[in-house]
Amino acid sequence: MSSNQLDKKSQAWSALFSEPMSELVKRYTSSVFFDKRLWAADIEGSLAHAGMLAAQGIIGAQDLADIQRGMAQIKGEIEAGQFEWKLELEDVHLNIEARLTQLVGDAGKRLHTGRSRNDQVATDVRLWLRSEIDQIGELLADMQRALVSVAADHTETVMPGFTHMQVAQPVSFAHHLLAYVEMFARDAERLTDLRKRVNRLPLGAAALAGTSYPLDREAVAKSLGFDGVCQNSLDAVSDRDFAIEFSGFAALVMIHVSRMAEEIVLWMSQNFGFIDLSDRYCTGSSIMPQKRNPDVAELARGKSGRVVGHLMGLITLMKGQPLTYNKDNQEDKEPLFDTVDTVKDTLRIMAEMVGGEVAADGSRSGGLKVKADAMERAALRGYATATDLADYLVKKGLPFRDAHEVVAHAVKEGLKQGVDLAELPLATLQGFDARITDDVFSVLTLRGSLNARNVLGGTAPVQALAQIARHQARLGR
Amino acid sequence: MSSNQLDKKSQAWSALFSEPMSELVKRYTSSVFFDKRLWAADIEGSLAHAGMLAAQGIIGAQDLADIQRGMAQIKGEIEAGQFEWKLELEDVHLNIEARLTQLVGDAGKRLHTGRSRNDQVATDVRLWLRSEIDQIGELLADMQRALVSVAADHTETVMPGFTHMQVAQPVSFAHHLLAYVEMFARDAERLTDLRKRVNRLPLGAAALAGTSYPLDREAVAKSLGFDGVCQNSLDAVSDRDFAIEFSGFAALVMIHVSRMAEEIVLWMSQNFGFIDLSDRYCTGSSIMPQKRNPDVAELARGKSGRVVGHLMGLITLMKGQPLTYNKDNQEDKEPLFDTVDTVKDTLRIMAEMVGGEVAADGSRSGGLKVKADAMERAALRGYATATDLADYLVKKGLPFRDAHEVVAHAVKEGLKQGVDLAELPLATLQGFDARITDDVFSVLTLRGSLNARNVLGGTAPVQALAQIARHQARLGR
Amino acid sequence: MSSNQLDKKSQAWSALFSEPMSELVKRYTSSVFFDKRLWAADIEGSLAHAGMLAAQGIIGAQDLADIQRGMAQIKGEIEAGQFEWKLELEDVHLNIEARLTQLVGDAGKRLHTGRSRNDQVATDVRLWLRSEIDQIGELLADMQRALVSVAADHTETVMPGFTHMQVAQPVSFAHHLLAYVEMFARDAERLTDLRKRVNRLPLGAAALAGTSYPLDREAVAKSLGFDGVCQNSLDAVSDRDFAIEFSGFAALVMIHVSRMAEEIVLWMSQNFGFIDLSDRYCTGSSIMPQKRNPDVAELARGKSGRVVGHLMGLITLMKGQPLTYNKDNQEDKEPLFDTVDTVKDTLRIMAEMVGGEVAADGSRSGGLKVKADAMERAALRGYATATDLADYLVKKGLPFRDAHEVVAHAVKEGLKQGVDLAELPLATLQGFDARITDDVFSVLTLRGSLNARNVLGGTAPVQALAQIARHQARLGR
Amino acid sequence: MSSNQLDKKSQAWSALFSEPMSELVKRYTSSVFFDKRLWAADIEGSLAHAGMLAAQGIIGAQDLADIQRGMAQIKGEIEAGQFEWKLELEDVHLNIEARLTQLVGDAGKRLHTGRSRNDQVATDVRLWLRSEIDQIGELLADMQRALVSVAADHTETVMPGFTHMQVAQPVSFAHHLLAYVEMFARDAERLTDLRKRVNRLPLGAAALAGTSYPLDREAVAKSLGFDGVCQNSLDAVSDRDFAIEFSGFAALVMIHVSRMAEEIVLWMSQNFGFIDLSDRYCTGSSIMPQKRNPDVAELARGKSGRVVGHLMGLITLMKGQPLTYNKDNQEDKEPLFDTVDTVKDTLRIMAEMVGGEVAADGSRSGGLKVKADAMERAALRGYATATDLADYLVKKGLPFRDAHEVVAHAVKEGLKQGVDLAELPLATLQGFDARITDDVFSVLTLRGSLNARNVLGGTAPVQALAQIARHQARLGR
Repeated sequence: MSSNQLDKKSQAWSALFSEPMSELVKRYTSSVFFDKRLWAADIEGSLAHAGMLAAQGIIGAQDLADIQRGMAQIKGEIEAGQFEWKLELEDVHLNIEARLTQLVGDAGKRLHTGRSRNDQVATDVRLWLRSEIDQIGELLADMQRALVSVAADHTETVMPGFTHMQVAQPVSFAHHLLAYVEMFARDAERLTDLRKRVNRLPLGAAALAGTSYPLDREAVAKSLGFDGVCQNSLDAVSDRDFAIEFSGFAALVMIHVSRMAEEIVLWMSQNFGFIDLSDRYCTGSSIMPQKRNPDVAELARGKSGRVVGHLMGLITLMKGQPLTYNKDNQEDKEPLFDTVDTVKDTLRIMAEMVGGEVAADGSRSGGLKVKADAMERAALRGYATATDLADYLVKKGLPFRDAHEVVAHAVKEGLKQGVDLAELPLATLQGFDARITDDVFSVLTLRGSLNARNVLGGTAPVQALAQIARHQARLGR
Repeated sequence: MSSNQLDKKSQAWSALFSEPMSELVKRYTSSVFFDKRLWAADIEGSLAHAGMLAAQGIIGAQDLADIQRGMAQIKGEIEAGQFEWKLELEDVHLNIEARLTQLVGDAGKRLHTGRSRNDQVATDVRLWLRSEIDQIGELLADMQRALVSVAADHTETVMPGFTHMQVAQPVSFAHHLLAYVEMFARDAERLTDLRKRVNRLPLGAAALAGTSYPLDREAVAKSLGFDGVCQNSLDAVSDRDFAIEFSGFAALVMIHVSRMAEEIVLWMSQNFGFIDLSDRYCTGSSIMPQKRNPDVAELARGKSGRVVGHLMGLITLMKGQPLTYNKDNQEDKEPLFDTVDTVKDTLRIMAEMVGGEVAADGSRSGGLKVKADAMERAALRGYATATDLADYLVKKGLPFRDAHEVVAHAVKEGLKQGVDLAELPLATLQGFDARITDDVFSVLTLRGSLNARNVLGGTAPVQALAQIARHQARLGR
Repeated sequence: MSSNQLDKKSQAWSALFSEPMSELVKRYTSSVFFDKRLWAADIEGSLAHAGMLAAQGIIGAQDLADIQRGMAQIKGEIEAGQFEWKLELEDVHLNIEARLTQLVGDAGKRLHTGRSRNDQVATDVRLWLRSEIDQIGELLADMQRALVSVAADHTETVMPGFTHMQVAQPVSFAHHLLAYVEMFARDAERLTDLRKRVNRLPLGAAALAGTSYPLDREAVAKSLGFDGVCQNSLDAVSDRDFAIEFSGFAALVMIHVSRMAEEIVLWMSQNFGFIDLSDRYCTGSSIMPQKRNPDVAELARGKSGRVVGHLMGLITLMKGQPLTYNKDNQEDKEPLFDTVDTVKDTLRIMAEMVGGEVAADGSRSGGLKVKADAMERAALRGYATATDLADYLVKKGLPFRDAHEVVAHAVKEGLKQGVDLAELPLATLQGFDARITDDVFSVLTLRGSLNARNVLGGTAPVQALAQIARHQARLGR
Repeated sequence: MSSNQLDKKSQAWSALFSEPMSELVKRYTSSVFFDKRLWAADIEGSLAHAGMLAAQGIIGAQDLADIQRGMAQIKGEIEAGQFEWKLELEDVHLNIEARLTQLVGDAGKRLHTGRSRNDQVATDVRLWLRSEIDQIGELLADMQRALVSVAADHTETVMPGFTHMQVAQPVSFAHHLLAYVEMFARDAERLTDLRKRVNRLPLGAAALAGTSYPLDREAVAKSLGFDGVCQNSLDAVSDRDFAIEFSGFAALVMIHVSRMAEEIVLWMSQNFGFIDLSDRYCTGSSIMPQKRNPDVAELARGKSGRVVGHLMGLITLMKGQPLTYNKDNQEDKEPLFDTVDTVKDTLRIMAEMVGGEVAADGSRSGGLKVKADAMERAALRGYATATDLADYLVKKGLPFRDAHEVVAHAVKEGLKQGVDLAELPLATLQGFDARITDDVFSVLTLRGSLNARNVLGGTAPVQALAQIARHQARLGR
């Protein structure tokens, strides 16, 4: 009577069931067509589990050898695209296990000893995500390197710094790009922090309560490179914090991308004209023959919505769930997969569009084309050095709030005459405050203003160069 | 020199471009692998456009005939799975147009006269969504019919009505199910309302500003069954309100499903035991042989997260976008497609799990198995008729707030003795208020309480029967 | 023994309770400091309930008179700021009821006959929201009127129409503003649709199951102006769909505002310089004396986040809630209140900033200052009439896709020479296609292009004027 | 002519402005009525800034003394509730600065030298949030201590462990509570990680570009206890990552709370009856005299929506913002303030409700009342030891998948007879597999099952005790 439970899966779930799942239910509950992506992690986890079972004497050495042999063959079949994924076997786990048993018999049926799909899937997802995290860490470094490489050429390129999208003060283009380096550097810090919480082993929690077999969980953790073991079995099978925390990280990365993309789109617009993109990163219009559109930046900006949506979806998923594993949790995978894909593709393409393609010798080609003249012209609009005049007056003894008001009068006069502050005659300026003398004009130039902001983190070229050196030391070029 | 712009798409976007898109960009910006789903709408829209162009004399009768012939062949190829979708042709629109030109020559190149992909894609998505809306409307009706069909058998089945998950007052199971009918009926109302705003024609807006060809937009709208024409071309190409409004509708549907699913999971739990599900809607455990899990309900509850996430994603997408069309908008499709699929699958399977499969003769099998005894036993715990005692005292002249306090004392005594109110001796009850006489016991029974709530919308069986009749008249059985 | 349950609220909830709520719990669960905002609706609902109770003979005529007298006094006290709101009485409902009983004795204790706070609060919120909806409907009309009033002056003002933030085709500023009129008009439609679902009466559902008193719910509905009665008592007390649907509407309004605000900020930036704002709508900088910032537009854009957040909060709130009323639902109020306030303030201030303050005689002052010259100059960059050249060639017999490629070559030549298409010599143009003759130059002007797009919804001035007339007829001026 | 810019704030923003802000704008853009909460951080930051200005010789020693004296008085005024906050002074910063200048004259006008409100507000928020983080860290520890204290009494209390809300395997109540300790411990880890990124000094970034004064930013950082200095001035004034990261943390805390609250509500329901709550944590019903509702747990569950909403609001706020400071950012404060308040209140009250009030001597009273009998009875339903029978068979040599099928048959028989597995006769069991002998009955008991799961993180009492000891060592009792 006793027969393998998986043999008749298409007829009934087990002997307890009187009828098969309806076709609708099979399709609705099956996850194999998206979770098969976890196959390598699933096999890796199973081999570690089997190795430990054998070491603990729970299965025999021959069982282990059979499992290893079978898994090697399955790996080959999957890589060759010859593995037949079956809907009625629900998920990646049962598909692989059923094939294993087909290949090696009883040893295959022994593999699931002391574990459940509940701890197995949690282990697979963590293994897979850990590997993706390491790739994303490298992509974040690439992005920073791309930004630093462009910044290194533009510490003296003056552009208008904006607040409220109004011309505020002159800054260098290098300094502007380095702001994004800070953002992506924080993202990388966050990734390192959260990796610790991803890299813990749920296996051994079994269905929910642990198992009666003498498993050596710490040995499994060690063999799979985990930092430690989940300390509570109920938590281990129901926890999806790591997916939410990762998605929160990803949402922040995409928010940073969306800000950079917004600026690239603006800078590329004829009304700014600060940059151009290589043709390979542009698309045209089906109707307007003159168009060269920064599609990549726009799409990257738009894809922030997708990732933010997934974060919200995952949070909604877990809200109010009682312990322990509920089928709801199966819904963690698709958003997580898509989030990982989106972040990776986006970081890769944005880094290349900004910093160019990197050749084998480290040289870069095809990145942002900076129109320094247009940037400088734009900085000359908007009285960007008004603060410098106020600071000049403070240094001559006026309290700041009084100086602010003096300069407001001067700007008003400039607007009336349609000229910049530097173009007002000395006598006119002295009419606003007698302390103003001939030396004022050097502080009213763009470069005078730029160089003056020589404070740690400020826009003076010497400060930008120091930051670039720091980043290059940290990241390599 | 002049040649079809699409011929050398793989070399450069147009003559304006000096190099092809990078492979990374092609893959990142291409939408054909998801938007090919719109092919039928795309062809339908193109044929209506071409018909109007010919009627207006913008293209010739032969051009129209060629286009119709070519499109017929393309339709056949796609349905037969023989159409070759090409990544470098970006999207469903250029893929079909390029094939058309291949098949019919110059007439194909004339099809795009007076339109742009910007208004074309907006038209396609609306045509497609309108059709899905009509299907979802029918599924919402099916869901309501399923609930009504079970309710019709249970107007006298008593269960505890809960507030705060505490036993509150007896209600009928019919009455409980009819609460969900109200929710899904509101969803259907919303769907009808929003369909009006989906069903407006953007075509004719061209790239953004309208076109210099004498198009007859209202004729196209009529031929495609639109209720009207978008009245501003800039709005027409940049508007994605209809996608957000639909997603908001879908989120509410799924919130309703999540509430019903939560209850099904609870009722199926051994601690309630109010219902059982057919085996075809249950799954087992890979490790625990006794398990029969309500996976479908859990998954449906979980899928609310997915749909809510898509809503959030779409809102994020549109936030702060300047006019008019930006590439960000391409990101509207995948969430919309997945939302539609999820809502349809979920409504279908939940309706069937509750109301059973519907045979050709309208009979139902395999729906919820109601355990009326367990429901009634549960209603006897928790002093469900305490309000009835208070109301009894009010009718004897006590102000309600005083009656409330009298009953609190009686319940306290019942708790001390471990008995229900109906089990306290008359003398004891009279000790709390002398107005209590022998007739009190009839109001303290479950059925007495149920029948007493005979107000419009109340739980009395006669009220539930009236609601069922109303719904059946409205929906058909 | 029997005494008013509310008398000793600070000692214990009722006779059933052995100790008072902890101070922490009182503060955590109390809602009076935000829900007192509902006081007018609460009194209005109570008076309608009492009137019906008397009409049905459930309370006496003297009771009704006492209640009316007491409520009149309470109304006066609240309006005069003399009403003492008490934390230990939890919410607006118990505060008012307790005061009523203090004022009029037993009649006050009879008011709660046949109702519960569960249906009472649902009624209050709907009454309040209905009133706010009507005000928001008027504000949406004001916003549309403001836009139309500016548009009416600018049907001939040419600006660049953008797609992908690249200059695409010339459009009129009127046409651009009318795109926003379409958005706010759709919002108004949605508001009208959802009002129907807000305007249904829950009262009579009592705690959850209806009541044993012979209430006349339809009479109450009529006296309070409701369109109908909630048909299921369980649904009536647990439904918060109306709050979510309203919040979804509000999120779309704010998304539209965020798009308009984004454009105002850009247009005000020195790099566009398309508009100026009156000083009264600008703020300065604490450090930069030259700054005039469009704070209002930025803040309005930012406030979209607040409203979107509330929508997500409400959806999260309801996800997975079993029937019927749970305390979670108390959390519906603060987000709803803040959403209403934000939408009202934002619509009012944005309408005024765009269209100016409206004097008693309907004249407007202080609205957007349009810099038509800067707009026109910007339209001359970016080959905005390239599509016109392609259309010209189509009309001369070239298929559109071939014409597109011809113009791409011409634009390339223009870029090389640094001139616009209209500035290329005829001979050069003819080099690209021999069909080009002297009449080409009229189609290459901005105004030629604008006038040519004379299709329904297009940018031609005659079309914009027709739309303006339609809106004025619909909205009044 | 030169006069303090803030003197005539009500007339015009500065000399550059021709009219005052409209009343509507003042109200819409003012933040003082919520950001005055930052007053202590604002003063602390200003004193550190002034100290450094003096140390660097930028202001005189007398200026510093005047500023210190003035600030001491302002602190006193605010603490005494005597400070007059003025709407037209916009925010906490200008209110305090204007009062300072009123009190100490020119020194007050010198305070703003080398800084801007842009870097000032970023500093204030970080200082304030850092202090709140430290308090929340302590509350998370209190919550864990409360859970551990209850767990310590219940390592032998058996309850059903659920998956899919179906009885799965017996677990101890201690083990169940310890799952939540893991969650809150992860929250505390996250909080420690994110604190590093909050605790960096923006001051010195000035408006956006740094300043021309020789500030010593690292000295200010040191004096204010910051871990370091923001390294890019543009990033420093526009970064709100720390608010989003904190909100993501808070959302996870609230998701954990929502799960625990859901279980408390279920356990308190008559259908479970696993626990009771002290009266001080319950509320009654205005209509149903028998009700004792777990309002606190429900409200805590509902408040997860509020915090999730704020997270989404903040993400929406930052999406697509160009650099650097935009007024949108003012919208970061209210959601952040409300998030902090909600998390603190919720952690405090939930910890107390679970673990009781903690007296001065560390003793606890009023916490969860555990109904061990009801838990154990519930564990006897649902064939909780079926997995134990399968494991028993595996140990007798059957492969796991075959054993699973054998037990499914046995459960089916049990269901037919209406008895538990332990109640089936040995002969019947042997009919399913001959390997079953008399020793089977010890593995079929609840306690046998519990003790058997003696793997690291498993539910065996010895494991739970080890975890409790670990937590107590980590947290103190």
